[in-house]
Amino acid sequence: MQDSNLEALKRMKSISGHVKGIERMLETDTYCIDVIKQIQAVEAALGKVSGLLLEGHLHSCVITAVRGEDLGERERVLGEIADVFETAAKV
Amino acid sequence: MQDSNLEALKRMKSISGHVKGIERMLETDTYCIDVIKQIQAVEAALGKVSGLLLEGHLHSCVITAVRGEDLGERERVLGEIADVFETAAKV
Amino acid sequence: MQDSNLEALKRMKSISGHVKGIERMLETDTYCIDVIKQIQAVEAALGKVSGLLLEGHLHSCVITAVRGEDLGERERVLGEIADVFETAAKV
Amino acid sequence: MQDSNLEALKRMKSISGHVKGIERMLETDTYCIDVIKQIQAVEAALGKVSGLLLEGHLHSCVITAVRGEDLGERERVLGEIADVFETAAKV
Repeated sequence: MQDSNLEALKRMKSISGHVKGIERMLETDTYCIDVIKQIQAVEAALGKVSGLLLEGHLHSCVITAVRGEDLGERERVLGEIADVFETAAKV
Repeated sequence: MQDSNLEALKRMKSISGHVKGIERMLETDTYCIDVIKQIQAVEAALGKVSGLLLEGHLHSCVITAVRGEDLGERERVLGEIADVFETAAKV
Repeated sequence: MQDSNLEALKRMKSISGHVKGIERMLETDTYCIDVIKQIQAVEAALGKVSGLLLEGHLHSCVITAVRGEDLGERERVLGEIADVFETAAKV
Repeated sequence: MQDSNLEALKRMKSISGHVKGIERMLETDTYCIDVIKQIQAVEAALGKVSGLLLEGHLHSCVITAVRGEDLGERERVLGEIADVFETAAKV
């Protein structure tokens, strides 16, 4: 596993615990705004993980595909990056 | 528990499973872009839960605070909404 | 005009200049990443303006509607806030 | 100019008009929620423009840098993409 993926996995496990904590907050009728703030914290943490994964991906698969001679594969790989960027860039 | 919170809890439990699934994807070295797309799906699902919670909050605590005579409390409650909106409105 | 709206107008005028600047960057073939960063700066600035406007709105129309006796109007005003929050909370 | 940049420029000009329209809405004291919705529409439009620009960039500069032999330049170009993605992926 790439270092960036190991770090991503470590963070996802921590996010998993955070999400469980939010479930408990809802079960115990915690004040809504406090729950919303925790959800926003999880969203920020997930954004960091996607960032890490994309960075690892750029430095591995993307380099391989772009330096390779298979034009279809190159297109596919670059198109995927444009796709996830557009989703991330939505309001 | 308010209906909107019950629905929010149900959704958080499903998000929790989704997050566990992403951990497994990372453990089994799934293609990064597929992992990023699942993370983006979780972010969208979390956005829906915040929306539900805010709606429930507006129709309960906010009405109580705004119709009450405690001006400090009213300020506090309205300020909180402005806060979570600003966080949500960040790029 | 409310103070928060005056401030919002001042900021929109500055954003307008920023957007014009980005047009010029495109016309003069500026490096794409530099243009994207300026676009992201404009998005952040717009998020601030929405935040200001919502805050002003909460402290004026929302208080009036929620303290008023017209239940339909109250619903409408609270529903609108839930709407703009959900749009802001999207991935 | 690349096709994607021409399209981006066309869209920025339209966004510029949209922003001017929002200034007028503020000057004429338009209902805040309607202004916020227009701001959110501009943010969505800006997200599309960044997406277009990134796509053009991936298919030009990025291919050149990644296929070139200058490792420092390759790092720089890939790092920039990770950067703009992380900004876009923020809550």
